[in-house]
This record gives sequence, structure tokens and C-alpha cells, in this order.
Amino acid sequence: MAKATEPRRMPKREYEARVPALREALIQLQVALQPAPFAVLLVIAGDDASGKGEVVNVLNGWLDPRGVETFAFHDVTDEERERPPMWRYWRSLPPRGRMAIYAGGWHADVIASDPQRPRELAHLRETLRHLAHFEGLLAADGALIVKVWLRLSKAAQRTRLHELEENPDTAWRVSPEDWKHHRNYERRARLAEKVRRATHRPASPWHIVDAADVRTRNVAVADLLLARFQAHLQTHGRPPAPVKPRRVTSLHPAGLRRLRRLRLDQHLSEAEYELKRDKWLGRLNRAVREAADRGRSIVWVFEGWDAAGKGGAIRRLTSAIDARDYRVIPIAKPTDEEKAHHYLWRFWRHVPRAGRVTIYDRSWYGRVLVERLEGFCRPDEWQRAYAEINDFEAQLTEHGSIVLKFWLHLSKAEQLRRFRHREETAYKRHKINAEDWRNRRQWEAYEVAVGDMLALTQRAHAPWHLVPADNKRFARLQILKLSCHQIDAALAAR
Amino acid sequence: MAKATEPRRMPKREYEARVPALREALIQLQVALQPAPFAVLLVIAGDDASGKGEVVNVLNGWLDPRGVETFAFHDVTDEERERPPMWRYWRSLPPRGRMAIYAGGWHADVIASDPQRPRELAHLRETLRHLAHFEGLLAADGALIVKVWLRLSKAAQRTRLHELEENPDTAWRVSPEDWKHHRNYERRARLAEKVRRATHRPASPWHIVDAADVRTRNVAVADLLLARFQAHLQTHGRPPAPVKPRRVTSLHPAGLRRLRRLRLDQHLSEAEYELKRDKWLGRLNRAVREAADRGRSIVWVFEGWDAAGKGGAIRRLTSAIDARDYRVIPIAKPTDEEKAHHYLWRFWRHVPRAGRVTIYDRSWYGRVLVERLEGFCRPDEWQRAYAEINDFEAQLTEHGSIVLKFWLHLSKAEQLRRFRHREETAYKRHKINAEDWRNRRQWEAYEVAVGDMLALTQRAHAPWHLVPADNKRFARLQILKLSCHQIDAALAAR
Repeated sequence: MAKATEPRRMPKREYEARVPALREALIQLQVALQPAPFAVLLVIAGDDASGKGEVVNVLNGWLDPRGVETFAFHDVTDEERERPPMWRYWRSLPPRGRMAIYAGGWHADVIASDPQRPRELAHLRETLRHLAHFEGLLAADGALIVKVWLRLSKAAQRTRLHELEENPDTAWRVSPEDWKHHRNYERRARLAEKVRRATHRPASPWHIVDAADVRTRNVAVADLLLARFQAHLQTHGRPPAPVKPRRVTSLHPAGLRRLRRLRLDQHLSEAEYELKRDKWLGRLNRAVREAADRGRSIVWVFEGWDAAGKGGAIRRLTSAIDARDYRVIPIAKPTDEEKAHHYLWRFWRHVPRAGRVTIYDRSWYGRVLVERLEGFCRPDEWQRAYAEINDFEAQLTEHGSIVLKFWLHLSKAEQLRRFRHREETAYKRHKINAEDWRNRRQWEAYEVAVGDMLALTQRAHAPWHLVPADNKRFARLQILKLSCHQIDAALAAR
Repeated sequence: MAKATEPRRMPKREYEARVPALREALIQLQVALQPAPFAVLLVIAGDDASGKGEVVNVLNGWLDPRGVETFAFHDVTDEERERPPMWRYWRSLPPRGRMAIYAGGWHADVIASDPQRPRELAHLRETLRHLAHFEGLLAADGALIVKVWLRLSKAAQRTRLHELEENPDTAWRVSPEDWKHHRNYERRARLAEKVRRATHRPASPWHIVDAADVRTRNVAVADLLLARFQAHLQTHGRPPAPVKPRRVTSLHPAGLRRLRRLRLDQHLSEAEYELKRDKWLGRLNRAVREAADRGRSIVWVFEGWDAAGKGGAIRRLTSAIDARDYRVIPIAKPTDEEKAHHYLWRFWRHVPRAGRVTIYDRSWYGRVLVERLEGFCRPDEWQRAYAEINDFEAQLTEHGSIVLKFWLHLSKAEQLRRFRHREETAYKRHKINAEDWRNRRQWEAYEVAVGDMLALTQRAHAPWHLVPADNKRFARLQILKLSCHQIDAALAAR
């Protein structure tokens, strides 16, 4: 962690002489940022009364407001409360080429808390782990994260509070709460230190800036931003382009073995299916309603070979759910807004509210399947995606969401039969194209990627269900049954 | 309004014989819709217990869930409550090529209300006007709006409620409220009739479907959707392409006269500016805080000639506002998500919450300026935009938002001077390009368009402020003063 600079008063004349060059440099930063392949996230956190809001205002005055947006996370809205805590931060992320300033950062909530009891301390640890993960994931994606901590000694804090109270224009900013915080200065400082330590990483370090002198503080923050930006532009201005891999090697062969062990010859007759279907649809309907009553949301993930019957399975499933409560999110090519963000951003967008259901038809697993195999991302990117995905799903389940993941498995022969059938059927022809045939030629490579996915993202709280899908009826009934079982178990568990 | 069909029971066999063809036709509709230049909005409204939810579920089972999304507007979230009522409907709109089903439609809230007192009745009238306007605006933009009213007689309603209560699987769906509604059948039917009449338009008519027989009802709704879609595809499948106008004629010369009367030689010395600036920044700070305390949001709109100093003016303005409370939305080329929606959608997106501020750097007025002159939209489109814009702003002000609109006016000579200065200054060069020079050559045409804009969108609740901007200091101080006056006046008025 950078050491606090010695407190020193900057004379007004010196300040006024320096500001024009700083402003010009900041504007130039924004011009250089626009075409850059990364976003800038500037966190202004600090001790009470250290002037976080003032610094944000000063920077906003110096920057071109058209390329920067400011966020402060005060009151949690009910739309936010009904989703995992990190959702509100994900939705605020700027696209590449733009800057966001976070007053208080995503750290403000934790720092405002006063954890004492073991349960609160455990919650703190968990939150800090999510925050560190969040920053790590954005930094790995190229984002420049500049985190400033405005440091104010207890004595300086007292002086500042008195100054604010004496000026009628600023007196409103000092509340009894502030004085209470002042009395608890040491305890709050220790908590802040803990938060900083837990989220201090090479790619997202904390910079301590002494806030005793307002002008020194302002200049220091701007200097810091400029220096970090210049360095970042050199290292991240032109990331290496991904290339399509020539060979695909398994990272964890256990998954492939599991996949190959799956018996694909399982069958269900029409009569048997009709007999059982309605019973399971009824059970699913009750399970989903029960989850909704308890404010639990449900996330279904459907992955599988082309033509494995994901669409049909989703249709059966949704026939048991009130149409007002679910959304199906088909994952096709990302929109340009989505492309300008971290690949998980587009999935965070659609995370359901309490009691609601989101069904992803293909999902974030595209990162370790098609993107891995087609070379749409670099090896380091898809390799770290397993951990990123596990964390994402863990956030969902910790929040209380029920995450159901299905891989619809098909034999190569059955896929061929279905492709031909689609080509021959007028209203199915739109469902098959050259890409499907191209993917089919890479069957073995896909098998390896699917196997790695199964092995590396199999978790107790979000298990993979492998469904033999050569027989559509069998697959559909399996999905209904497995869904009911998992939802019932999740509801019984808490 | 289409007449209700005679109630008739459809035998199960007949139904089962018809459904496969209906399903195929619906899937084909979705295939044909994908590349079409319009969205489909299907509203399923109706009398209590007429089976709105059931119909939505049936349709969702028949359609490919990947191309359709369902919305029901139950509980207003606080994020919705803090914005004009239509915001929640705007944010639900599907892009072109996709379909949305609205259970209850945007009409559900009004129909659930039971307006009695004069104030409530006035509110009802206003709401109905907004709903009709909303539908009209979407229809004019090409959307296919299919509105179904499921009709159930009082006797049939009683039978249905009893049936639901007797089946243990559906008993939960009947509440004491439902029986209360049943007793008030006639009054509720009159209100529904009123709502339908007020929102019945050639492009968005209500279709009455008898809901006494479930199977007849389901088939009738699907048939209706298919028929309307086929007809719509013929008329709206290929809208005429806009062409760049050869001549630009004023619609309302009063605006141009107002523009030309503006004295551009007004000046302010540096010393005078510095003397007054801080006073007005302080006043603005207080006015904005006062507005926030009262839950009023503020929308600033900045329009003006290229190089008129919009960015600098915004920077001065925002230096007086807590950076956590405002957002600057620079309007450049729309993203592809924005392009796939009505042109007002991208502005509705950023409407501020209670107590917050949005500053639009260029705005929806692009529709009647650059889009009109460059032929980015057809004459009928920009010509109706004046009314659409007036309604949009009226919704903001009725909700309590304060709307401040500024046109920064420049002489042609001063613009030339600034263009040259930008070209000569290293860190300003990015702000000038060939397009700016091209726009400049069309100065007279732009003057006409600006004049029309001023004349046709000048409203008491959202007036245009014309600011002479040849002298930057004068312009900036004017903007501060006028903003303070308008905010103070708006706060005094209620």
C-alpha cells in the first residue's frame, strides 16, 4: 500500500498554477480513453469528513462530463434488495472507453457496518471475498481500477467538522452521526484498514492520500489517476488478439468420462410420457409457487448440443409456470452494449427478482464452450472463466436463488438425423444453418470442452444435471423430475 | 369495436385437431417477425376470472419462448414510483423483430382503480390520455398492437369462480376480493368500457373475445393475432426509406423570428463574471438541494450550434451540484439496442429518480433537427415528433420533474472562429470533424429547423431559454440565472 504523504499546505497560488495543466491532462486522458479497450473505475473512499464528495465534485468539474459517470450507493432500492448484493455494482459498470467515479466505492456499505457478533463477522468476510473477486475479475478483463483512500487523522477530522459547522453553507453536512463516528474513530479506522487489506491486490491497490490539506489532496488524486492511466494504457492499450486453438486438450478428464458414461439409449413411450407428464407439471407448478411464496428466485440454465431439444424442453417447463413470473433469455450474439462490458455483465442484467424465474437458453457457459473453441477469447480468459462462473453462481445461491443447470446430451447419429429432419421441414428450416454443420465437425473438441465444464463447475449448490436427450420424451420428463427434486431440496434446506 | 362472438362450446376433439396448425402458424409468425422492422405487442386484458393468465400461458406454450417476453404490471417498485407512470411501460418495450405479451396490459392499473371523486376522475382522464398517446406513438412507429378483451358475463363469471374454488389445484386463485369484484360486476364493466373506448384507435383497436368457453377463447385469440400479423406484415413489412429533403420550409416562422431577434452582442467581462459566478453557483446549489429534499427531479436539456459551448456550460453547472446526484447523458449515435426501439426509448431510459438530476447534452430534439435535415427519418416522422416530445415533457412535469431547456445561440462568424481555434489546439482537435463543417454549410436550413422547434415545443411548463453564446461568460451566467429562476418558480408553484 502506498504510504501516506507528509501533510503539507499547498499555497493557493501554487494550486492555481497547477490546475490548468491538470485539467488539460485529464481531458487528454478522456480522449485517449475513448478508443481504448478498457474502462476506468475510480473509487474515492476515505475517512469521515475527508471530503470524498468534494473530490468527486472537483474531478467532475475538471473532466469532460460527457465521458464520465458518478455513482454513490446510498439507499438500496427494492429492485436491488431482491437480487444478490453485487447486482447493483454490476449494473453501474461503464462500458469500455468510458470512466466511472464511485463515491465511497462498493466498499461504503461494509465500512458503514459495525460488525461485532460472529455471524456479522462471517458476513463481513464473505462480502470482502466478493468485493475482492469483483475487482479481480474486472481487472483481469482489462479495467483500470484506481482506488483512493482519503486519510484524515482524528485531530484533523475534529478540525474539519468544526470548520464545516461554522460555515452556514456547509453546516447541514455535519450530523450527530458524524460526531458519533468521530468518537469511534479508532474502531472505524481498524475496520477500514481491514477492508482495504482484504481488497488490496496488485491490479487494484489502494492508494492512501492525505486529506488534511484540501488542495494537496485534490492535486494528489488527479496526479494519481493520470499516472495510473498512462501506465495502464501502455500495458493494456492493445491486448493480444485471441487465436483459434489448433488442438484442444482436456483440463480435467473426469468430466469427459462422466459424459461418456451417460446411457443414451434410455427411452420413454408416448403413452408412458402422457401418463406421467401432467403429474410432474403439477408438482413443478407447486414447487415454483412455493419458492415464489418464500421470495426465492429460480435460475434455469440450458446447455446442450445443437438440436438437442433445449427449446422444446423449455416450452414444456414453462407451461407449468405462470407466464407473468418467468423470462426466457435466449443467448445469441451479444449486442454492442453487451460487447463493451465484461462477458458476465449481460447475464447479471437478467438475474431475477425475488420470487421470479429466469431461464437462460444457453448461458455464460458459452465462454468455456464456443468462445474457447472458436478462439473468440484468449486461453487465459476462458481458463479463468471457470472460477468466475463458480463465484457468480455462488452469489446467486448464497442470496437464496435456486440454480438448475442442464446439459442435454445427444449421440452424434441422433444429431445428424435431427439436422436432416430440420432441413426437410419447412417451418424448421430457420433453425439450422452452416454454423451448426461446422460445430458438428468439431464434435470431439466440443466433447472435451463440455467435459471440462462439467468437471470444473460442478458444485453442491449448483450441480450439473446430465440428461440423455436422444429420446425427447425421456429428456423432458427427466428435466421436470430433476427440477422438482432440486427445488424441493433447496426449499427444505432453508 | 369487434362484436363479441356467440358463445359456443368447442368440443375437445375439434380443439385438438386445430391446435397443431395454430402452433405451426405461430412459430412461422415468429420466424417472419424476426427480420421485420416492427415489434408485436399483444395485450391480454379482460373481465375478472376470464382467464387472462391462462391465455398468456397457453400462448407461451405455443410460441417459441425465445422470441417472446411476458410482462404483468403488479406491484410498482420504488424505482418505478419515482418516475412518471409510463416509465415502467417504456422500459418493457421489446425491440423490433420481437414480441411482448402484456397480461392485463398497461390498462390493468386504471381498471383496478375505482375512481369516484372529481379529482380521481380527472386523474383517470389524464391517465387514459397518456395511454392512448402511448399506443398511438408506438403504432405510428410501426409497432403492431393487438389488444384483446376477454369478455365474461356476470353469470359466466359466477360459474367460473365456483369451478375454480371447487378444484383444490386452483382454489388458491379465488380470493374474497374476486367475490367483491363479482358483486360490483356492473360498475367494473362500465369502467372497463370507458377505458376501452378511450384507448380504441384504428391502429390499436380492442378486440372483444368471448371467454365463456375456454377452448373457443384460446383459438380465437391465436386466430386474431395471426390475422392481425399477416395484415400488418403486408402494410408495414417494408416502410418507405427516408430521403434527404431538397428544400427546408418552415412550419411555423414565429420561432425563426424569435431566434433572429436574439441579441448576440451581449457581453460580460472576466471580472464581472468572477464576481457574480460564485453567488449564482451558490444559489443553484441551494435550489437543487431544495428540489431534492422535496423529491422533485430535474431534467436539463442542452441544445445549440456546434461549438456553442454546451460542454463548458454543463461543466460550470455541475460544479454546483453534488456529483452523486446527477448524470450527464451525452447523445451521440444510438447503440443497436437503442436503434431497435422507438426514438424516445433511449431518453426514457435515463429519466431521473426522485431528487436526482439528468443533464442531456443534446437530446430528443435531434429528431426535429439533424434527423429532419439529414433525412434520417421520414417527414411524417419528424413532423409528428413535436407532439410526441410535448407529451413526453408534459409527463415529466406532471410527475413533478422540472424541465429546463436551453438553446445556445451563436453567430456564424463566432462559430467559424471557434472551429479554427479547435483545429489549432492540440487537445481540442478531437472536438471538430468533417461533419461539423458539413453542418455549418447548412446553417440556414438548421436555422429554419431550430425556429420550428422553438415555436412548436414552447410550453409554459417546459419553456425554451434562448441564450446568446458568442460570449461564453455571458452564456454561462445566463444559464445559471435562468436555471435558478425556473427551479425556484417550479418549487414555489407546488
